[in-house]
Amino acid sequence: MNVTLRGRTAHYRTVTFDSQRNAVMLIDQRKLPHHFLVAALPDFRATAAAIRDMVVRGAGAIGATAAFGLAQGAFAFRGRDLEKFARHVQSVFHQLRSARPTAVDPVNAMQGVLRAMRTGETVEEQQALALAAAEEFANQDVEHCAAIGRHGAKLIRRDSRVLTHCNAGWLAFVDIGSATAPIYAAQAAGRPFHVFCDETRPRCQGSTLTAWELAQQNISHEIIADNAAGHLMQRGEIDLVIVGSDRTLGRTGEVANKIGTYTKAVLAARHGIPFYVAIPLSTIDWQLPRGRDIPIEERSASEVLGAWGVPELTRNRAKGDSSESIFVRVANPGSTARNPGFDVTPAELITGIITPAGIIKPENLWKERLRLEYALAAGEKNNPVKSQLKKSPATH
Amino acid sequence: MNVTLRGRTAHYRTVTFDSQRNAVMLIDQRKLPHHFLVAALPDFRATAAAIRDMVVRGAGAIGATAAFGLAQGAFAFRGRDLEKFARHVQSVFHQLRSARPTAVDPVNAMQGVLRAMRTGETVEEQQALALAAAEEFANQDVEHCAAIGRHGAKLIRRDSRVLTHCNAGWLAFVDIGSATAPIYAAQAAGRPFHVFCDETRPRCQGSTLTAWELAQQNISHEIIADNAAGHLMQRGEIDLVIVGSDRTLGRTGEVANKIGTYTKAVLAARHGIPFYVAIPLSTIDWQLPRGRDIPIEERSASEVLGAWGVPELTRNRAKGDSSESIFVRVANPGSTARNPGFDVTPAELITGIITPAGIIKPENLWKERLRLEYALAAGEKNNPVKSQLKKSPATH
Repeated sequence: MNVTLRGRTAHYRTVTFDSQRNAVMLIDQRKLPHHFLVAALPDFRATAAAIRDMVVRGAGAIGATAAFGLAQGAFAFRGRDLEKFARHVQSVFHQLRSARPTAVDPVNAMQGVLRAMRTGETVEEQQALALAAAEEFANQDVEHCAAIGRHGAKLIRRDSRVLTHCNAGWLAFVDIGSATAPIYAAQAAGRPFHVFCDETRPRCQGSTLTAWELAQQNISHEIIADNAAGHLMQRGEIDLVIVGSDRTLGRTGEVANKIGTYTKAVLAARHGIPFYVAIPLSTIDWQLPRGRDIPIEERSASEVLGAWGVPELTRNRAKGDSSESIFVRVANPGSTARNPGFDVTPAELITGIITPAGIIKPENLWKERLRLEYALAAGEKNNPVKSQLKKSPATH
Repeated sequence: MNVTLRGRTAHYRTVTFDSQRNAVMLIDQRKLPHHFLVAALPDFRATAAAIRDMVVRGAGAIGATAAFGLAQGAFAFRGRDLEKFARHVQSVFHQLRSARPTAVDPVNAMQGVLRAMRTGETVEEQQALALAAAEEFANQDVEHCAAIGRHGAKLIRRDSRVLTHCNAGWLAFVDIGSATAPIYAAQAAGRPFHVFCDETRPRCQGSTLTAWELAQQNISHEIIADNAAGHLMQRGEIDLVIVGSDRTLGRTGEVANKIGTYTKAVLAARHGIPFYVAIPLSTIDWQLPRGRDIPIEERSASEVLGAWGVPELTRNRAKGDSSESIFVRVANPGSTARNPGFDVTPAELITGIITPAGIIKPENLWKERLRLEYALAAGEKNNPVKSQLKKSPATH
């Protein structure tokens, strides 16, 4: 999406690849919203470190980063021995995977890259195929998000007031985002509307990342404390809720997402406000039978006990370091915290799931399974990069 | 309640009066939870400033502070001219009232002091009566809270897990508190239980003040993000909710309280979890016909856009100033916020109102009105201080 720096607007993706420098280029999300920096990661070890250190977060974004990191690692190999090359690539794969061991997206993305590479007959060809497959993964992520936007845009009418939670925005993907896709599409259609961003304690992805995204696109928005959504709904000030999801159960339509999502769904149902979940098809879990079987990650208490921010007194000074974020302890020093990282919303509270293949009632996901799996597979097959490459091997 | 400083435990009230120094003594709530300081306010102007600057907050606490401030101002008068004295006292009254112009508790408390003073026949007698009336107000506040505790304690069973929101604790009153009264009474009865404190964004009175109170009384507790209560209820980890109230409508049983209270009530109702509101009788509004007529204060956006805390790196250093709280900007600098300060919970979501006169269903408040008004008035008349004073005038 667009980012404006010193009066100049340019289009950015969360992650791209610089072939000339063999560098993965990442927006440093730890610096946002106070600083916008694109990090050039000079080798795959730096890319793995960036995944580990949360320079990049979000399912689609870390998937694409790992895919590019694998291609980057492949290009670092010098020589023509295919067997040595295969061992080298396996080692790169394992180092990238262990950067965020519980995430499934990097593994899925890199397995796609490995599959594409196997069709090459020389080291050089396999290197070129690796990069093409990584580019394909990134482009598909963008196309899936764009499709979510096309289906979801009609939900946002003129003067709608939309609530969103956490950041399921373009920063969590390669571009466009999931929950934000209908928002950006409605803006492109020229309709005026307003977005309320839950600040989304404890990590405040709403007040930092989503608010930054919306401000960059000049979309009318206000941040609210997570406590305020119920009151605004009660007074008739919210027309629609759109959130993302980390995992959606295909069998039950239950949605696991950032802590607090369930609360907003309960409130929306009480007030008859439509509650939508926007997801790429890859996040549907067709195996797990019940939402209560989803293990809920208990995160560090320190997130709840304090906050990251820029000291207000120094914020406007021109000194470099004085505008760095610091952690402040807010809570009573003698107390600790419980910090469940996400929660599970039952299908009965969800109006619809906005997917790249259309809007589907959560209880109908299972019925639509074959169509959805076909759409996901077709997306992977339809990409023209691979067939073109076969005809004329690239020479990176 | 008890406060432990450097291994020594002593009993404190939020506000007391030091007759020898003619000083109002206040726990400085702006310094909590990082520092415990009792400020000695040397004259009524300093007391007014303390009310204005939020050194003290909470209905009962600022009522008692204003009452003591008025007595303090009365003692500052030198001379025997009753007319000049009356003008002086009026001036003190107005200065204390204007410290927090929208609050009703300081006005009610000071009017009680003025009424008591009128029965004195000399300046000296009126000064003594002013202090006696202020002490009476403070003692009654404590007695009302103790009565809330007696009625509410039985709700907390062995191993109960209690959720509370914001701070309706002893710091908001003279002692004991309203929502915390059943908690302290259950502890005194020897039952083990656990409290979850909502952090209560944006001002975090839960993670700072309530958590500090519970830690001082050695009550098992954990802070949670406001987003987490719904998830904990869904997983069966909360048995009971107790909150306070700024204003309860006697005609409808609706409860106005800190933003987020309504959300917890909606969640509790969905999960069949009892939801109680603990209040002193003085906060019942018998006039207003409907909760939606309550104007909701929109507070400063900056509260939502950042947080107050102690920089973590400096927190453990021994230097004085380095452990002071600072404000950090958390949110995107280009964004603003909506910040409604409280919300209104309908009677249908409230299991019971815990009052000093017993636990009452919210829809029965109006039926019980005469009994409750009589109990409030009787409390004021039964205090023995006034009659003793008539017999032997004090000589402060």
